[in-house]
Amino acid sequence: MKLKVYADRMSQPSRAVIIFCKVNGIDFEEIRIDLAKRQQLTPEFKEINPLGKVPAVVDGRFKLFESHAILIYLATVFPGVADHWYPADLFKKAKIQSVLDWHHSNLRRGAAGYVLNTVLAPALGLPLNPQAAAEAEKVLTSSLSKIESFWLKGRGRFLLGGNQPSIADLSLVCEIMQLEVVDEEDRNRILGPHKKVQQWIEDTRNATIPHFDEVHKLLFKAKARLKKQLPKESETETQSSFKPTIHSKM
Amino acid sequence: MKLKVYADRMSQPSRAVIIFCKVNGIDFEEIRIDLAKRQQLTPEFKEINPLGKVPAVVDGRFKLFESHAILIYLATVFPGVADHWYPADLFKKAKIQSVLDWHHSNLRRGAAGYVLNTVLAPALGLPLNPQAAAEAEKVLTSSLSKIESFWLKGRGRFLLGGNQPSIADLSLVCEIMQLEVVDEEDRNRILGPHKKVQQWIEDTRNATIPHFDEVHKLLFKAKARLKKQLPKESETETQSSFKPTIHSKM
Repeated sequence: MKLKVYADRMSQPSRAVIIFCKVNGIDFEEIRIDLAKRQQLTPEFKEINPLGKVPAVVDGRFKLFESHAILIYLATVFPGVADHWYPADLFKKAKIQSVLDWHHSNLRRGAAGYVLNTVLAPALGLPLNPQAAAEAEKVLTSSLSKIESFWLKGRGRFLLGGNQPSIADLSLVCEIMQLEVVDEEDRNRILGPHKKVQQWIEDTRNATIPHFDEVHKLLFKAKARLKKQLPKESETETQSSFKPTIHSKM
Repeated sequence: MKLKVYADRMSQPSRAVIIFCKVNGIDFEEIRIDLAKRQQLTPEFKEINPLGKVPAVVDGRFKLFESHAILIYLATVFPGVADHWYPADLFKKAKIQSVLDWHHSNLRRGAAGYVLNTVLAPALGLPLNPQAAAEAEKVLTSSLSKIESFWLKGRGRFLLGGNQPSIADLSLVCEIMQLEVVDEEDRNRILGPHKKVQQWIEDTRNATIPHFDEVHKLLFKAKARLKKQLPKESETETQSSFKPTIHSKM
């Protein structure tokens, strides 16, 4: 029986799991759970993940959610997955685990909090919260600095000095990619100072195209739609002549 | 060379790692990094963990931080660790990973945010933030409900229906134990409705005594000291005739 992936490509961990499956030739069925329509809360989906979050997978009788757990599971059980994604070497594995754990309370908290409170909230029926956005930006900026100065410190092009991407590169890059939907000036202000981070995003993209671009298409399209849903007073701020530093090729 | 564990027993992930080592007879040296004295920011400790967080371990030439990564590493490399802590079975392993990932943005975010903003902040030179405390309490309460209704749903006494604790039980219980330092009435209000959670804390404690109690001693002692550091207007709120629902045996 085919692996089933329940996901919404608007969700960054969903994108990471889908790209991972595609890049590694895993035969899977993608089942869209539309978060904007709150499909993650339906009784049908609660049968898959009672906590109502995407992504989630069903592999035969086995159900699993939380994207890092899913990526580790898929890299372990599908024999076609190249070792660099989640190495057999237990020291390398432990270091990847360390990045993935760090991700939750740092990069994820910053990026998701910032996007929610500057762009996404109205689409979810929530108010924008500038104070929460400012706090999230601090966490995000600090996280990007740590990626730049510490996690990307090694000689390789990827996290932990690797020459090929691991599941940590894919997960963290997909997290940052959600900044695509924020105002270009804001994104430039946040990502601009982090040249190594920008190069690493491009390297991770290059290692996973054409799937990376294809899976992110929905996100690029969503930007205009989300912009329309922003309250009027914010609209002047969202107009900018700045060009994005990265993604010119996307 | 002995495993070195850099930790502050006031930090819940530090306690989880220390208890794990003691319960499993791992020969280790505990090096105290006093967070109240900001020792995690010294150049000496930054050699161990450049991101300045505890716990961190050094095993020979191998350095690692992030408590979940450490627990997984220790359970994997030390042959004396019983299988139930981190089973060889990859399906069980994936489920434990799922709980650990869930922990970060749910229970940890709620519990740590609540304790910081109701009790801990003044000791760290920060102001108390009642609004942040209220928001953290919501996340904490929702997380406890999910543990009660979902993660503890199985027939066993531990998470995921286990009959013996895994590293996830230890990590999550240590997280909740930090509520020891908050006002008893508040703790009662938060933990009181979650009878299964209370029983599970007690079961995890029983599975790991005497180490569980010994490692938590510092936390119990800290309560009086932290209370003194609270601003005056909060003091009336911290007096209560309520008795703690749990921990009467601790």
